[in-house]
Amino acid sequence: MTRWFEEVALDTPFDLGAHTFTAEEIVRFGKLYDPQYFHTDPEAAKHSHFGGLVASGWHTVSVGHRKMVDRLFAEEDVVRAEGGEPGVSGPSPGVNRMDFHAPVRPGDTVRFTLTVTSKRPSNSIPGWGLLFNLLEGHNQASQLVYSADIVGFSKLRDYKMPIRLKALAALSQLPGIGRLIRR
Amino acid sequence: MTRWFEEVALDTPFDLGAHTFTAEEIVRFGKLYDPQYFHTDPEAAKHSHFGGLVASGWHTVSVGHRKMVDRLFAEEDVVRAEGGEPGVSGPSPGVNRMDFHAPVRPGDTVRFTLTVTSKRPSNSIPGWGLLFNLLEGHNQASQLVYSADIVGFSKLRDYKMPIRLKALAALSQLPGIGRLIRR
Repeated sequence: MTRWFEEVALDTPFDLGAHTFTAEEIVRFGKLYDPQYFHTDPEAAKHSHFGGLVASGWHTVSVGHRKMVDRLFAEEDVVRAEGGEPGVSGPSPGVNRMDFHAPVRPGDTVRFTLTVTSKRPSNSIPGWGLLFNLLEGHNQASQLVYSADIVGFSKLRDYKMPIRLKALAALSQLPGIGRLIRR
Repeated sequence: MTRWFEEVALDTPFDLGAHTFTAEEIVRFGKLYDPQYFHTDPEAAKHSHFGGLVASGWHTVSVGHRKMVDRLFAEEDVVRAEGGEPGVSGPSPGVNRMDFHAPVRPGDTVRFTLTVTSKRPSNSIPGWGLLFNLLEGHNQASQLVYSADIVGFSKLRDYKMPIRLKALAALSQLPGIGRLIRR
């Protein structure tokens, strides 16, 4: 999220926009990362248990991630245009659960939403909080195709850094010493 | 796995081979699915908390999946060459957990392994079993970069279909009726 940790609202679905999957991009992703015939060969796929071409699950996940990144960048611009300072997101330490509920077929339009279901300050990294995000994708028939519980870091706005850590941070800016500390 | 459910050995790591990530492919994947500057811009990435370009987590996941698919196809060929009949894998219903432990940087060689940690017959789909797979990626320094608990379907070899289901399967081969049943 581009909100500060303290401002992130819980249980409020955030629309990330929709994407229409084409046969071309399904096959392109399949050939690169998931070359099973029901992801790469529209004719042969008719004889699979899917009855036709379907997107690789990792393709659906990657497109949902792209929609999220695009939406968060767009929101950052809005916050800056309003004279505010956007919050800072960190890397994702992982995924707690991920389910593929229904296949995504060529022509399907999947709308992705992000809902923060809970949050807490990080125990391991001072100044950061953890957001527990539910990412969902629904197709044009409102059928859930994909859901994931994804953990993300988010910077605390109101955090006061202890003097010991401040000194370390200042030292790490010096060439040589910084490299040594970060090792 | 291309072994039959009954033959799948537990807790035996299965080497899926290694992949060396180039800056070019890291940037290509980043531009398509994860356009954050530390995945797409080698110069700007130097000023990120990663200190340089890193692969999107979804890129690492997708490459690991590709290695798995390639390895399973290769094993199928071996089983057939030995006069055997390879087992049948089904789709993956999901992921129970996924962790990104360390960044993957240009030039890193990641070796992926698959370990079946447990298995049981499916409660919902007759004739199929569930495999609980641990997928891991280690870099050239033997550092774990990525791990995931992935669930997969695997066909039972010794399954006897009840007559009721056999009749349904036969009916589903008739045009019209098959389409009706599969709905």
